[in-house]
Amino acid sequence: MGEAPRVTVLRLGHRPARDKRVTTHVCLTARALGAAKVLVATRDPGVERSVRGVVARFGGEFEVETGVAWRRVLRGWPGPVVHLTMYGEALDDALPRIPRDDVLVVVGAEKVPGEVYGLAGFNVAVGNQPHSEVAALAVFLDRFLGGAGLRRAFPGPVTIVPTRRGKTVRGRA
Amino acid sequence: MGEAPRVTVLRLGHRPARDKRVTTHVCLTARALGAAKVLVATRDPGVERSVRGVVARFGGEFEVETGVAWRRVLRGWPGPVVHLTMYGEALDDALPRIPRDDVLVVVGAEKVPGEVYGLAGFNVAVGNQPHSEVAALAVFLDRFLGGAGLRRAFPGPVTIVPTRRGKTVRGRA
Repeated sequence: MGEAPRVTVLRLGHRPARDKRVTTHVCLTARALGAAKVLVATRDPGVERSVRGVVARFGGEFEVETGVAWRRVLRGWPGPVVHLTMYGEALDDALPRIPRDDVLVVVGAEKVPGEVYGLAGFNVAVGNQPHSEVAALAVFLDRFLGGAGLRRAFPGPVTIVPTRRGKTVRGRA
Repeated sequence: MGEAPRVTVLRLGHRPARDKRVTTHVCLTARALGAAKVLVATRDPGVERSVRGVVARFGGEFEVETGVAWRRVLRGWPGPVVHLTMYGEALDDALPRIPRDDVLVVVGAEKVPGEVYGLAGFNVAVGNQPHSEVAALAVFLDRFLGGAGLRRAFPGPVTIVPTRRGKTVRGRA
């Protein structure tokens, strides 16, 4: 396997009053599991601040942008577009057909506009059951990147040293 | 590989006012990715209702219980106890040593009492980065069960038929 594909995550349907925590989970999961960038359709400076705070302390090049024109992003995306939805085809079936390229992974909140199903090249179900877009994103990234997302080093001012019991933190927490 | 190990998830640190959505994501992720039961430390009838509503419509035997005496559960657990924490040892390193048995997977909210690290036989990091207990649980279950959690059938009154574009739902939604 050559260089890992670059992954961007697009988060739709974010309502700042209600979804701040779940959207922050989406963003940090994207970062921790190997995506390079997250785009959030609705503008939310609070989410940007939280995510940039984690990047500043824990390192890496991860980018976050909120208030993006998502239709334009979807229509103009040069690589494969993968929409994670409980209605889609099974992950096991779709995965081998998704080009290992500059991919856009779309995750919604509760309701996703119908046109997204048509704009995505792949509508993929991480299980055809209702659960969590955070979980779906995590499993998709782990499978798509073959676990490589979790094995990357994050050279930040704060480093957590893997420990069998207790906590070992290097740097300023 | 023989019969799949039975997995129970224990959710600690749930505050009903603040964590209802994230805890519901934890519960539904547990169900969709192959766990048999979830225990939530704090009592929350709203979370129980949501999860049981999904089970009633979409099927399966998944159980939810809130307001459990978590220390007693942890101390008396007969099988392996796996605590998912960003401070733990790497998933890749821990996974081969975890017995494929009646396992208890512990996920916290923001702060987990220090004694949990001692009571768990395995403290496992799905990446040593801050992200989401929902994501960590999803990846752990997917890896521990070798993807089998996602391949199970859920014989409920409502069935989603995997579809490449659009939505196909059988039964009453």
